[in-house]
Amino acid sequence: MTAFVRRLQARWRDAGTLLCVGLDPDPARFPASLGAGDDAIYLFCRAIVDATADLVCAFKPQIAYFSSACAEAQLQDLIAHIHDRHPEVPVILDAKRGDIGATATHYARELYERFRADAVTLSPYMGFDSIEPYLEYAERGAFLLCRTSNRGGDDLQMLEVGGEKLYERVARLATRWNAGGQLGLVVGATYPAELARVRAIAGDMPLLVPGIGAQGGDVQATMQAGQTRAGGLVINSSRAILYAGRGEDFAQQARAAAIATREEINRWRH
Amino acid sequence: MTAFVRRLQARWRDAGTLLCVGLDPDPARFPASLGAGDDAIYLFCRAIVDATADLVCAFKPQIAYFSSACAEAQLQDLIAHIHDRHPEVPVILDAKRGDIGATATHYARELYERFRADAVTLSPYMGFDSIEPYLEYAERGAFLLCRTSNRGGDDLQMLEVGGEKLYERVARLATRWNAGGQLGLVVGATYPAELARVRAIAGDMPLLVPGIGAQGGDVQATMQAGQTRAGGLVINSSRAILYAGRGEDFAQQARAAAIATREEINRWRH
Repeated sequence: MTAFVRRLQARWRDAGTLLCVGLDPDPARFPASLGAGDDAIYLFCRAIVDATADLVCAFKPQIAYFSSACAEAQLQDLIAHIHDRHPEVPVILDAKRGDIGATATHYARELYERFRADAVTLSPYMGFDSIEPYLEYAERGAFLLCRTSNRGGDDLQMLEVGGEKLYERVARLATRWNAGGQLGLVVGATYPAELARVRAIAGDMPLLVPGIGAQGGDVQATMQAGQTRAGGLVINSSRAILYAGRGEDFAQQARAAAIATREEINRWRH
Repeated sequence: MTAFVRRLQARWRDAGTLLCVGLDPDPARFPASLGAGDDAIYLFCRAIVDATADLVCAFKPQIAYFSSACAEAQLQDLIAHIHDRHPEVPVILDAKRGDIGATATHYARELYERFRADAVTLSPYMGFDSIEPYLEYAERGAFLLCRTSNRGGDDLQMLEVGGEKLYERVARLATRWNAGGQLGLVVGATYPAELARVRAIAGDMPLLVPGIGAQGGDVQATMQAGQTRAGGLVINSSRAILYAGRGEDFAQQARAAAIATREEINRWRH
C-alpha cells in the first residue's frame, strides 16, 4: 500500500475524520476584507487551510479554479504551505486528466512534481495505459472517476455492459489495475445505492465522495453505504465550508462548518 | 454551424489541406542551436508554426507539454502569435478536460479566454452537463474523445452497450448534443474500420484523427474511412513533423515533412 493511502488511514484513525475540504476559490465570493490583491486566491485558501487542517483527512484543490485565474504560482505556494505547516494532511489535486503515453507522463510531472500533489483525480475513458504513467510514482495516489455526482453522469456511467453498469466495470478494472495499492475511486454522494455497489466491488479501496453539502448528498446514507472498518471514505465538501461566512471572520465560520460536517459524519461512523 | 467549423472548412477547401500539426514541445529533443533559454519552448514552436502554417488546416498544442514545464505564458504567447500572424489557421488546444458545472465553466474560461483556443478536446465520461459550459461559447468548437488511438482505448470504448460499442454510443450522443454545430469527435487513425463507423453515425461532423506518423496509422485507410466531400478530417501529426530534423534547419525539415504528409493525404482525397 502506498504512502498516500497510509497517510489517509492515519488521518481516519488518529485525527478521527473522514472530511475533505475542497478548495474551489471563487474570488467573486471572497469576503471584502480580503482585498483584491494579486495573491487573494492564495490568502483565502491559506486562511481556510489553517483554520480547518486539524479537522480534515485531506485537502482537495480544484485546479480549474486556479488555472482560469492564471494562478498556478498561487496553487504551488498553497500546496507548499500545506506540506510545510500541515505535513500530516495529504493533498488530492482534482484535475481529472486523461491522456495516453508520453502526454500522460507530462501530466503526471505537472501534478506530482510541479504541484507536489500526494494524489490526483483521473478520467478512465482512455483505459489502462492512460493511468499507468501515474502509477510509476509509487508513493502517490490516483482516484479514477467512477460514478459522478452530476445528472449527466448517467449518459455513459449507467449504460449496461455485459450484465453490469459501466461504472461497476470501471470499479472492477480499478481493482485489477491496483497492484501497487495506489488507486481509489470517485463516487458521488448523490447515489448511495451505487456507492454501496462500488464498495462491494472495490474492497477497502479509498473512495473520494463529492456531493454532500451544496450538492445535496446525504451523509447518513453515504456513511452506511461506503464506510469500511478503517474509514475508507474521503468525503468532500467545498462551497458549504469555504463560503459559510462572508465577513472578516470567514475562516472561523469555515471552521465551524467543518466541525459540524465532521460531527455529522462521525455520528454514523462505526 | 460555428465559426470554428467554418474556418476549418475554408482551410480544407482554399488551402487544400487536412493536415494538423500537433505542438508537443519536448526540450530534450530540441536542436542544440535553439539554446536552453527560458523561452526555448516558445521559440521552437513558433519556428515550426511559421514554417508550416500555409500547409495546415489547424495547429494543435498539447497543453500537458506546457504545464509540465511551467510554460503557460509561452503557450499564451504562442497562440497569440498564431492568431496574429496566421489568423486563417484555427488553434485546437488539446486538454481533454472533463468536469461538471461550475468547474467546467472555469476550464472553459481557461481554454477559450485565457489561452484563446478556437477549439478544445474534452472527455465525455461525465456526460452532457460536463460539455454544456463549453457550448456557451457559440463560435468555438469542442472535440469529444470517442475512439482513441492507444491500446488501452479498448478497456472502455469497445464495451458492448445495447447492441453497439461504447465509442459508437459516444458518437451518437455527440450528434444529439450538437444543436449549435460546435462538436467534433476524436478518432484514432490506428482503427480505420471504427473511423468508418463513426463517420456513418456522425454525418459530416469534423473528426480529429491522431495516430498517423509516429503511431503508425495508415493515411490511405484513414482517408477512405473518414473523409467527406468537404474534407471532414483534421489529421494530426506531431513528432514526425516536429522532430524531422535536429540541426539548425529543423524548421525547414519540419516543413519538408509537412509537405510530404499533406501530399500523402491529398493523394487519397476525392
